[in-house]
Amino acid sequence: MRPRLALTLGDVNGVGPEILVKALSRPELFDVFRPLVFGSVSTLESVRHWALACPRFVVVNGAADIEDEATIVPVMECGLAAPVRRPGQLDREAGRCAVEWLKAAIRSALAGKVDGIVTCPLNKEGIHLAGYSYSGHTEVLAEMTASPDYRMCLFTDRMRIVHISSHCALREAIEEVRQDRIATSIRIAHETLTRLGLPRRSIAVAGLNPHAGEAGLFGDEEQREILPAVEECRGEGIACSGPYPPDTVFRRMWEGEFDLVVAMYHDQGHIPLKLIAMDEGVNVTLGIPIVRTSVDHGTAYDIAGCGIAREHSLCKAIELAARLAKED
Amino acid sequence: MRPRLALTLGDVNGVGPEILVKALSRPELFDVFRPLVFGSVSTLESVRHWALACPRFVVVNGAADIEDEATIVPVMECGLAAPVRRPGQLDREAGRCAVEWLKAAIRSALAGKVDGIVTCPLNKEGIHLAGYSYSGHTEVLAEMTASPDYRMCLFTDRMRIVHISSHCALREAIEEVRQDRIATSIRIAHETLTRLGLPRRSIAVAGLNPHAGEAGLFGDEEQREILPAVEECRGEGIACSGPYPPDTVFRRMWEGEFDLVVAMYHDQGHIPLKLIAMDEGVNVTLGIPIVRTSVDHGTAYDIAGCGIAREHSLCKAIELAARLAKED
Repeated sequence: MRPRLALTLGDVNGVGPEILVKALSRPELFDVFRPLVFGSVSTLESVRHWALACPRFVVVNGAADIEDEATIVPVMECGLAAPVRRPGQLDREAGRCAVEWLKAAIRSALAGKVDGIVTCPLNKEGIHLAGYSYSGHTEVLAEMTASPDYRMCLFTDRMRIVHISSHCALREAIEEVRQDRIATSIRIAHETLTRLGLPRRSIAVAGLNPHAGEAGLFGDEEQREILPAVEECRGEGIACSGPYPPDTVFRRMWEGEFDLVVAMYHDQGHIPLKLIAMDEGVNVTLGIPIVRTSVDHGTAYDIAGCGIAREHSLCKAIELAARLAKED
Repeated sequence: MRPRLALTLGDVNGVGPEILVKALSRPELFDVFRPLVFGSVSTLESVRHWALACPRFVVVNGAADIEDEATIVPVMECGLAAPVRRPGQLDREAGRCAVEWLKAAIRSALAGKVDGIVTCPLNKEGIHLAGYSYSGHTEVLAEMTASPDYRMCLFTDRMRIVHISSHCALREAIEEVRQDRIATSIRIAHETLTRLGLPRRSIAVAGLNPHAGEAGLFGDEEQREILPAVEECRGEGIACSGPYPPDTVFRRMWEGEFDLVVAMYHDQGHIPLKLIAMDEGVNVTLGIPIVRTSVDHGTAYDIAGCGIAREHSLCKAIELAARLAKED
């Protein structure tokens, strides 16, 4: 059976509604999953002109309530009235709906009613206006699933990156380069490659410093923290190696030498991935008990409502979530 | 008149000799420069079989001594007897020759006898074995030209990157993110784009932290040091802007929005450049009184002597040095 995936609409004034109708107008996507949108039918219908082939949206009260699946897309509105769409405008109600739809989707996933969650972008300022202190989706997921040790990852067809830390100052990220965090990241990466069914599961661990420290000449984190973590995980039978010089390890993965790189800080992984695959990257949250993927871009207020936002990253996020969910 | 460029042979047991004969077998390169090799005729002749079209090498005692330029490549041996070539072997004599040829080339450049220097790779361990404490070419250049404020840069056809610091631990690199260093880097970048004759000279300055600090949320270096440096240079009439989120600024340069990015640390610039242009990057040392470019790879002992090393980066380094030298 194709997995049921929750698709959250995110901020209605961003590009979320637009990319969602565009993605759902691609019939081939329905071969790999069944949708359950958490959002607003009126918002979605208001952008239908960007993708006329998209099936009709119908309000439902739960996954059990879905009929006539072949011709409609079911939508859970969760009792929320989305504000009238004003593309590019910061709005507290838009922020509130984005968070509440997300929370409802997470509850559905935890209850086993959906097999995974794919999220469209929300706006951080918008959710702060609405009175939440979350800095993004991931914090909501971590809190509701009681998962302090989650990892943000970026996947494309040829590049997979697990970051040991995420949104913090570079100074603080360096302090997170510790054997335990790195070893946990390697184990999470290994488990994910297994779930994806990759036969080889070859993991490279990047160094922190230029040339991976050049044998201790430029920093000692490689010898003190990274190498011990690699050795610890190799001892458990995981096919990992490193630390490798950061400036060539991503190229080597791109050329096929590795399946995944464990990156030491946010930009070490984001710079190569966004360079090679600006519109194709998928964000994955690992280390939580549910499947969750996301587009790799923000609300893009500057182009929201223009009809030019590309649905490519959302399609890839749906495909990846479907692959990860099938193994559950 | 085509500029005269010194080509230093580097470590004879690395890929230097091989890429040098391959590059010099390309007749079109001679349209933009005239060579003066600092190295060993016997070493070069021993690898001629990799590139039979390369002109004959002839020992000379200086630029004034060169005759019959059309059919030979002049070589300054500087009284040094290079060791017999043993590809991939660490050798103190090879280290000594690499440094002394480089020093002779720098003296020629300072005396105005050559218009610039292009260097083949040397081996750091080799030069340490020979008793020098330099960590590479750049330190020799900085010392002999009395230039403490040099900058390492990476150039390709579509990407130009000036780093505010280079070979040091990431921890130390963060401490170098200071308004004065950044402003100096922007000025050096602007001067270089002017010398290259680029009409627009648009310089982007990268942030240090994820999302360029997200308005102070992830670190304050953007607001405290980087933005003031950008404003200082804009006040001088330089077309610079930033700080930009590091994970998209290189993509934006690659797409043509900027001519050059000022990067906050070694890997921030090296990761994107090596990913996009593994064999085409050229290393440039700016902030010194002579023109100097270099291949963007090391001695590659693992493939030295196999005949598979590519001369592409060396050809690009020669072309760029010729362009920079013409404006002197």
